[in-house]
Formats: sequence, C-alpha cells, structure tokens
Amino acid sequence: MEDHKISMDKIVSLCKRRGFVFQSSEIYGGQAGAWDYGPLGVELKKNIQNAWWKEMTQLHDNIVGLDAAILMHPRVWEASGHVANFSDPLVDCKQCKMRFRADTMDQKALEEKKCPACGGELTEPRAFNLMFKTHIGPAEDSASIVYLRPETAQGIYVNYKNIAQSNRMKIPFGIAQVGKAFRNEIVTKNFIFRTCEFEQMEMQFFVKPGEDDKWFQYWREQRWAFYEKYGVNMNKMRWYHHEKLAHYAKDAYDIEYEFPMGFSELEGVHNRTDFDLTRHTEYSGKDMSYIDQDDNNNKYIPYIIETSAGLTRNLLMFLCDAYEEQNLAKEGEPEDYRTVLHFHPKIAPVTVAVLPLMKKDGLAELAKEIQNDLKEDFVTDYDQSGAIGKRYRRQDEIGTPFCITVDYDSKEDGTVTLRFRDSMEQVRVRREELSARIHSEIKNYKRV
Amino acid sequence: MEDHKISMDKIVSLCKRRGFVFQSSEIYGGQAGAWDYGPLGVELKKNIQNAWWKEMTQLHDNIVGLDAAILMHPRVWEASGHVANFSDPLVDCKQCKMRFRADTMDQKALEEKKCPACGGELTEPRAFNLMFKTHIGPAEDSASIVYLRPETAQGIYVNYKNIAQSNRMKIPFGIAQVGKAFRNEIVTKNFIFRTCEFEQMEMQFFVKPGEDDKWFQYWREQRWAFYEKYGVNMNKMRWYHHEKLAHYAKDAYDIEYEFPMGFSELEGVHNRTDFDLTRHTEYSGKDMSYIDQDDNNNKYIPYIIETSAGLTRNLLMFLCDAYEEQNLAKEGEPEDYRTVLHFHPKIAPVTVAVLPLMKKDGLAELAKEIQNDLKEDFVTDYDQSGAIGKRYRRQDEIGTPFCITVDYDSKEDGTVTLRFRDSMEQVRVRREELSARIHSEIKNYKRV
Repeated sequence: MEDHKISMDKIVSLCKRRGFVFQSSEIYGGQAGAWDYGPLGVELKKNIQNAWWKEMTQLHDNIVGLDAAILMHPRVWEASGHVANFSDPLVDCKQCKMRFRADTMDQKALEEKKCPACGGELTEPRAFNLMFKTHIGPAEDSASIVYLRPETAQGIYVNYKNIAQSNRMKIPFGIAQVGKAFRNEIVTKNFIFRTCEFEQMEMQFFVKPGEDDKWFQYWREQRWAFYEKYGVNMNKMRWYHHEKLAHYAKDAYDIEYEFPMGFSELEGVHNRTDFDLTRHTEYSGKDMSYIDQDDNNNKYIPYIIETSAGLTRNLLMFLCDAYEEQNLAKEGEPEDYRTVLHFHPKIAPVTVAVLPLMKKDGLAELAKEIQNDLKEDFVTDYDQSGAIGKRYRRQDEIGTPFCITVDYDSKEDGTVTLRFRDSMEQVRVRREELSARIHSEIKNYKRV
Repeated sequence: MEDHKISMDKIVSLCKRRGFVFQSSEIYGGQAGAWDYGPLGVELKKNIQNAWWKEMTQLHDNIVGLDAAILMHPRVWEASGHVANFSDPLVDCKQCKMRFRADTMDQKALEEKKCPACGGELTEPRAFNLMFKTHIGPAEDSASIVYLRPETAQGIYVNYKNIAQSNRMKIPFGIAQVGKAFRNEIVTKNFIFRTCEFEQMEMQFFVKPGEDDKWFQYWREQRWAFYEKYGVNMNKMRWYHHEKLAHYAKDAYDIEYEFPMGFSELEGVHNRTDFDLTRHTEYSGKDMSYIDQDDNNNKYIPYIIETSAGLTRNLLMFLCDAYEEQNLAKEGEPEDYRTVLHFHPKIAPVTVAVLPLMKKDGLAELAKEIQNDLKEDFVTDYDQSGAIGKRYRRQDEIGTPFCITVDYDSKEDGTVTLRFRDSMEQVRVRREELSARIHSEIKNYKRV
C-alpha cells in the first residue's frame, strides 16, 4: 500500500511532472545547485513575491523598495566582513574527491580522517570562502575581481542615504528588496532548499538606537502574521531563538517550518545593530549617520532590524504546506485518493480553469468565450480533453482554486458550474456574475 | 535661457534626485556598468515587467512562463556558439590603459595605432569574450568553470521539451522569460542603455518549419501593438531591418526608439530557424525534435521566432518618452515650466497621491483614512508638506496620474478633489466612489 504522507520525493516528482521545477540544464546532465522554475513554478514564485512586496511596501507607508545590482564594488564585501569571514570548513576525500563540511559531517569520521563515502583518506579542514568570484574587464588580476553578491542586504545599506534623501524618508523607515544571491555551497541539498543560486526577500528597517527592541518585537509579529494571512498551517511553524549570535547581531529569531526533512529555517528576524552602517562609514569614508529632524537634529547611526526570507524556500514551503493526498472514498469503499494543493487563491499559479463538458455542440466555443471574458482579470487555464472528473483532478493537483464547467444548460440559461477545489462543492453562477463572484471568493478565502 | 528639450543628463539627474536609478555602490566610487533601481525605479521596472508578462502569458493562451537559473551547464554555451564566438575586438592603449572596441572606434586612429584619448600607442585588436566566468566548487580549474548567462534565450531552449511535456503544449506555442543577463562589455555607456548587468524580456515561439514567415510577421505586429497599447509616442519608434544577419538567423528586425542619443535598439524580433535546437541535439545527444500529433506524428525540429526586449532599456525608453518640460504660462506671462512624466497609469510607479490641503483641523487624519481605503488596490503616496501647487508639481515630476486633495468641504460633504496629471483638470468625487472611478480612469486612459 502506498504511503500517503508527504515526502520530498513526492514533491520533487510532482514539480517535474506538472512543470513547477526542473533540474537546471537537465539535457546536459544537470547543473548542481541550480534549478529552473517551469510554467507553474514561475507563477507561484511571482505570486509569493508579489504578496510579500505588497505586504511590505504597499501596505506599510514607511517602507519603499529597491533593486540593487548583483555585481557590487568589491570593497562592499570587505566592509561587510564577507571577504574575511564568509567561509565554511571544507574537507575533501583524496580518493573519491567527495566534499564535506567539517562542521556538519560525522565527527568520528572527521577525527579518524576517513571518508564516510568510500573510506579513503580525508584532507585537513580548510576555510573555503563561499563567494563566487569573477573578473570585470579584460585582465584577470586581483584588481578586476568582483563577487556575485552572497546576500541582498548590503545593497540596501550602501543605498540607504540616497533613498532617505530622494524619497524624504524619516526614521523609522524600511527598504525592501527581492533578488538573487549566490553561494558556492560545499553541499547543496533538499531540492531547492539549499542551492548555489537562490532568491531572497529582505527588508531592512532603520530605527533610532534604543527603539530597536520594540521594533524587533513588532517585526517578529508582522512576519508571523504574514504567513497566517496566506493560509499556512501555523502548527507547522515555530520560532527558533539563536543562542549563538552572528558577529553583527544583538538578537536573532528564525521562523522555522516543518519541511519533510524536519524543521528548517524559512526566515530570519535579526537585530543587526549599527554594525553594517558603521563598517560602511569606516570603509567608504562616507558618513552613514542620520540627522534626526524630529529629535533636535540629533545625529546617530541607525540600528537595523532585518527580516530576511528565502523566496525559493518560501516556494518549497508553500508547496509542502499545500500538499495533500486525500482519500475521497466513503467507508467500506475502496480507497480513492486525489492529490490536491490547497494554495491560497492569491498564491495559486492558475486561478480559474474553464472546462467545457463536451468539445462538441458549441460548448468548446462557449467555454473559450468565457475564458476570454476572464483572462484580463485572472490567470486562466482551458482544458477540454478527458472525462470531467479527470480534469478536476488535474486542476486539484496544481492547486487551481476555481473550475468553471460549461454544459448544455449554459447554452440555454447562461449559467455555469463553479466548482471549489477544497470543498469540491459546486454552485451555479450566471456568466456575467463570474468575475465579481471569483473576486469575492478570493477576498474571503479561508483555508479549512 | 534653459533648453527645454530632453537630454540624457536631465534624465540621469531626475533619476537620482527622485529615486529612480542610482549608481551602483556609489559610496565606494561606483561599480562601472551596474546600476541600482531606487524606490520609484523598482516600481516602474516591476510595472513594465508585469505588463509584458501579462501580455505574453495571461493574454496569449499558447504561451507559458519560465524562470531558468543564471548559472547553467557550460556545455550550453559551447552549443550556442558563445564560447567560440561571443567576443568583441578589443584594443588597449599601452600608455593610458583606456579600452576601445576596434569595430566602433575611430578607424583612422585604429590604423595609425594612436590612442584617441592620449595619443599613446595602441595594441593590436584581439578577440575578447564577453562572458563572465566563475568557478563552482573549491578548485579553480577548467573543469569547474561556469558562466554567467549572456542571454536568457538558451534557458528556454534547453527546457522546451520538459515544458511541452509537463504542460501539454502543442505547436505553435511560446515560452516567456524575464531575467538578468551579464556581459563583460568593453565600453558601457548611455546610462542604463548598455551595461554589464541587465534584464531581458524574451519570448521564444516554437513553430512548424514553413510556417515561420507567417509567425515572424505576426510577432512583429504584436510587439509593435504592445508599445502602442502602453501609450508610447509611436512617432519615435521605427523598424530596422538587419541586412547582415547573425549566424543563426533567417530574418531579423529591431524596434528602435529615438533616445536622446539617437535611434537605438529596444527590442529584436528574430527568426532563429532550427539552429539552436539542432545544436543542442548535437551537443547534448538528446533528440530535441517534436512529434506533431496534429500532423500525422510528423517529426521535426521546430523553427523559433524570438521577441527579445531589454527590460532595463524599456525602462529608459518609458522614462524618456514620458518626459516633458511644459510651459504653463499664458501668452505674455513669464515662463513657468513644470516637469511631468506622462506614464501610462499602469506603468506609473505611484498611482494615487493623497494630499491634505492643510495638516490641521483633522484634514491630515481624513487624508490618511482615504489613503488607507485605497492602498489595498493601488500604490499610494501621501504628502502633507508645502503648498498644494508645489505638491502637485512633485507628483507630476514622478508621473503620478491621480492626485486626491482633501479640503474643508471634504469634511462637510464627503467629496474630494481628483486631479489629473496630464490635463491638470480637477473634478469633485464622492469618497466612496474613488476606487471605482480610478479603476475606470486607468482602464480608459488615452495619452493626449
């Protein structure tokens, strides 16, 4: 009998089968640590990104956005400490060439210098910097080195004065950014959870020193509420309080989600103090302090509260959290499972599928017309092949919250069937009321 | 007297002053060829990207999206021809170290080997590959080389069979993608027009050989209509027909826009034939042909029609096209210029600004309430400082299409002033009708 619990293998398989996520460069054997987001994955990712962006910038008056370049001046990474310290201890097997992180591998194997994979001899651990390096200009010398940014936060710090000035921001205020970051990870694993190329959604909130604890608390509450708002099962979420703090942090909490491989970090909320801006003042020679006009022109380096979430990790979380194999059989009947993704309708890759009951008798044409009515407002799909029950299952499996079925009555009386993914309930709706009805269902959606 | 024609300097200055675009890593003296998009720039970019994405995927039933990784398998770039051929002829000055592209520099200087900048001696031209290289894994040897993708198209080609299968696409169909690409340009110039890091919006359309000319024509028309739809001044657009074709192309047209530096490429529409898929079949050993179930299971390598637009170039185009310094003075009066950006409301970074006539007497509170009503639906701004005329000018300068002014009558009768950016006309609207009115104004917007 099949196990109907969620596993990473099932998620990976669904992702490939239905076009959420593919291995990068698959036809060439794959590129380790990189993944491509297919037709459904890219819509899902865009929806999560838009939900976060709207929450952060549109709904908070004192937060604005930024999109900084991936290639930054190399001094940025000296100031941030990444050139000196952003490394993991690396151990190689001299025989099979496998690589291990000394801090997370089997410690007995490390002591005995014996490869856990082949038994060969291991090298001594050495510090391996995780930043990808490249050269700008024609000469490949040290003067031309630039790094692919390993985090998006620094792009915000170096721009904060430009932004405060051009947009007349007054403390407390925040800057939000979504973008790619790159880390030459020694071990990539758990599908899209740990990869060399990933996306972050970060917001850096600039506050007056002394008010940082209050805002730290505020942002913990806000970020928790965000996941609740988008229908995540909060029983699978927990806070992890860092005991050992990074060199720049005064306090740090992670929001962890119970992925198939166990509780793992989804987002961090950190009090980064004035560490970064002080360093950039030192390294750039530019004064990064703020003159507080609301406080007697008091001059200070702001403290920074950071909310740092993985976008691609969020995508994996929303997939795992939405996934269910649901037994529809009544007692005594043979098992009948449907796979369904219970995405919030604002997150779902496809919002509405339009399905003619039959291809013939003008039903396909009518269904196409209805799709055309709706596609200015919603991401739609159209499917005319196979039995209607099978088509519903196909839409359930990709998480489409609403299906519209066009049947013979539709031709007569102008109504269609609106079918809901979670409850599988069906109601008749007049064609001209469909758009308003769907908008209202999205607005009032509650996950059951 | 000031010149009221548009110039690149004016655009650059506005961009910095109001927070559209900043120099990357400015506090460290700047990173050549990279730019950061500030609060208004990131909204403008997002709106252009969303408009394109909606047009391509949501409104075309046979086009789906993709977001492939930047780091791809290096064989991809051997197959595409980039490793062998993606280079420019580079000439250095031995004395002042300046770099020139031999194909675009002063040809007399090149012949005489005399630096146009300092008169020093020039090197012989040499092929300089424009791909950025980095190393994945701990060893910096040839086996670990990966490239930052110099174009997004190849990510689509290597995924086309996965996508066709998982999303049951039938030819003709398209795959759309927006993403970053990187080129180690010898000379970056014209602000964000030619940079080392940029964003592309590409759609690759897979067709049956023999039907390629028809689809080529179709996509030329579609792409032209897109710019018309978003209010671009079509007198500044023209087609450029390539005489000298790239090795992969059967036919190629560019849409050029008249930027301040002259007509320059904004988007290309290319018939790339079966070149890329044939090469990937050769290099990967995987059969990239398509079995056409609608045509007797006929097997063929599809032809590809590509529409390839620069997102960051589009942003520059929309800025230049929207820009006007408008003399508001009546005849005989002294000149009175306002700077206004005539963005289409769907493109404008801020849609609605809410302005209380005075801070006092509860007007600020009422204005804040109205902003709160609207911010779920629109990107809003709030401004209470300075004379109302000055605040309108501030909004005009960033292209906000609608201003709402809250005055003493608003407290009495629940109406506000709705002011239109382009015509500067003002109408009174009931507060509860604002959202519907603005939605309708956006829908019916025509640039005058």
